[in-house]
Amino acid sequence: MATVRLWSDAEADADPRVKAVFDDIRAARRSDFINNFWRALANQPTVLERTWADLKQVMAVDGALDPLTKELIYIAVSTANGCSYCIHSHTAAARAKGMTEAQYGELLAVIGMANTTNALVTGMQVPVDREFAVEG
Amino acid sequence: MATVRLWSDAEADADPRVKAVFDDIRAARRSDFINNFWRALANQPTVLERTWADLKQVMAVDGALDPLTKELIYIAVSTANGCSYCIHSHTAAARAKGMTEAQYGELLAVIGMANTTNALVTGMQVPVDREFAVEG
Amino acid sequence: MATVRLWSDAEADADPRVKAVFDDIRAARRSDFINNFWRALANQPTVLERTWADLKQVMAVDGALDPLTKELIYIAVSTANGCSYCIHSHTAAARAKGMTEAQYGELLAVIGMANTTNALVTGMQVPVDREFAVEG
Amino acid sequence: MATVRLWSDAEADADPRVKAVFDDIRAARRSDFINNFWRALANQPTVLERTWADLKQVMAVDGALDPLTKELIYIAVSTANGCSYCIHSHTAAARAKGMTEAQYGELLAVIGMANTTNALVTGMQVPVDREFAVEG
Amino acid sequence: MATVRLWSDAEADADPRVKAVFDDIRAARRSDFINNFWRALANQPTVLERTWADLKQVMAVDGALDPLTKELIYIAVSTANGCSYCIHSHTAAARAKGMTEAQYGELLAVIGMANTTNALVTGMQVPVDREFAVEG
Amino acid sequence: MATVRLWSDAEADADPRVKAVFDDIRAARRSDFINNFWRALANQPTVLERTWADLKQVMAVDGALDPLTKELIYIAVSTANGCSYCIHSHTAAARAKGMTEAQYGELLAVIGMANTTNALVTGMQVPVDREFAVEG
Repeated sequence: MATVRLWSDAEADADPRVKAVFDDIRAARRSDFINNFWRALANQPTVLERTWADLKQVMAVDGALDPLTKELIYIAVSTANGCSYCIHSHTAAARAKGMTEAQYGELLAVIGMANTTNALVTGMQVPVDREFAVEG
Repeated sequence: MATVRLWSDAEADADPRVKAVFDDIRAARRSDFINNFWRALANQPTVLERTWADLKQVMAVDGALDPLTKELIYIAVSTANGCSYCIHSHTAAARAKGMTEAQYGELLAVIGMANTTNALVTGMQVPVDREFAVEG
Repeated sequence: MATVRLWSDAEADADPRVKAVFDDIRAARRSDFINNFWRALANQPTVLERTWADLKQVMAVDGALDPLTKELIYIAVSTANGCSYCIHSHTAAARAKGMTEAQYGELLAVIGMANTTNALVTGMQVPVDREFAVEG
Repeated sequence: MATVRLWSDAEADADPRVKAVFDDIRAARRSDFINNFWRALANQPTVLERTWADLKQVMAVDGALDPLTKELIYIAVSTANGCSYCIHSHTAAARAKGMTEAQYGELLAVIGMANTTNALVTGMQVPVDREFAVEG
Repeated sequence: MATVRLWSDAEADADPRVKAVFDDIRAARRSDFINNFWRALANQPTVLERTWADLKQVMAVDGALDPLTKELIYIAVSTANGCSYCIHSHTAAARAKGMTEAQYGELLAVIGMANTTNALVTGMQVPVDREFAVEG
Repeated sequence: MATVRLWSDAEADADPRVKAVFDDIRAARRSDFINNFWRALANQPTVLERTWADLKQVMAVDGALDPLTKELIYIAVSTANGCSYCIHSHTAAARAKGMTEAQYGELLAVIGMANTTNALVTGMQVPVDREFAVEG
């Protein structure tokens, strides 16, 4: 149950700003499927437009990091934040982009390991080594 | 300021269990440098041994994910958890493993973006689409 | 599914401490509705009494911040903490106190933005400017 | 100590993209002061441009929420995320926008209260009341 | 709905590595019940083996902390992390190890209190007192 | 550097509400030392009074959980929340109440382990077993 209404295609078609974003999502993804995140965000066209524009730029295919690596990072952040929806959508996206079970297993292992050492470091309040400084 | 004492090399050398781990870290990394995390963990030899054994296995070079990708995931988790020490140590490690400034910029961009969409999804409590289900 | 039993009105009526709190909640809110949070907390009368007393004081109508602003802050914290129940209850409360869709859209936008810049700042470990110091 | 270099004014002036953003920040804020967040982000001009464009839009003066309320929400999120820098910068911004000590006290009180009830709700896994549903 | 398939007993029996772990869990707990966490982790035998080995060592009965205290700490961390599954499984485990309702009420009270003071401290960015230093 | 001024004893003595709380803290702890948290909170007497009253009740000596166990839980929550000040103050308090190094090592181990399994469970979105239900 969401705190907002999820827009149907008919409703989206009737609002030029929402329709423009939904059309662009469909074109960019070469798929008719619009997931619930965008249907929820449709209630706030300004946030919808900015979020989609930003996401398209950040997740662009021709970057310095390949698309699958970006999805792995997205899953890692979403897991640390406990965002159930985001974990599901980005795990599905990673699989669609070719993530193997072996890669997924290592992703989970690194996430698990990082959470342990983060906690140990924080619990003992370990001071940063000078060797890690950017310059010098 | 830590909540525990950081062990010097002399102290580590005097404790067989700690010495064994420090020796193995130095061998694995081909470097004499032992960072503060391990010097803090030396107060608890059992945790030290288990953590190093686990980390060595998880971050192993010959996995399904390359070592740099693992460091990027580690930075992402550490940032979401706000672990200052871990951010410093793993950003330094990623650079040592060849992370370019362009890759770092995209890593930051994905982390930033994920935190925004995580928050929007959580704020609106968006229900998971059936299309994301594992089977069917 | 909760980890505790949710108290019915009949059970609450049979326990003087719980009854007193439930009566006071109903009087303060001018409504018969007691939401599940209080029905769960009824298992621990001491925590129930203290939590209600604190909440009544903190959310008091005649403060320096108006009631709607307090609800917006409550939603912001609950979203950052990923507390699904709290997001639902306080979004409903904010709407009952007059939150418009435009205000809600800006609230989501600020929450989303703050999570991005929080992550960027944390990822780069930006040092605090001296200009932000309280005194001089 | 940051994980990146903080750009001086001279360096920023020598890079057209960074200079354009810094000029716009100074114009928008009617102040010469550029805080460290932007000096750190200057290392990544694309992220710098997008973040400033988004922030200007989100924190715009003529919205449905007044500028001070937005700062209070920003402080609440930053506190929940434990972002020290962001807490300092937005508390300073809130004071510059007129936050009184009484308002600050209530902000802290609401943040503290929300964190308690978030934790109690999460600890007991309280199910969402049907009464909080958006429609019906 | 999980992002992975939950293994049945028949599937586990057909995989020697998974079977060995499941057998050991049953022996250690003197119960036939294998909870979903392990059935999900079975997809990644290496992570399964390491996690079970670590957990068995950490939660060992003959430690410096008694088993119930360890479960209370586990619930506290899981609540702070918002891990619904973990809260359920460890609250059930704590009850199985004798946690009384009075103890549970105090656990919730301490968790709630800690979240409040954590937030107040973080919001005001209180500097650490020298008196808390480890040596001197 | 705090976002508020830390009150000196002279300032506290000049404000009856603050003085009353500081006096009570000193009496309860049988020590003249007032740590920075209370000196910061003195800026907001209402929050100061409520927080101290709550803390005194929650951490009371004659509860169902012994004082040391409560401190261990406090450290666990503070670590998960990344509250540096709180980790320092409650680790010092736990040691003052008799926490041994062996107990501290196990506390860290449980905190580390819980963060790993929390992350694995969240990453795989494991559904709660029916066996964990409170009744039936």
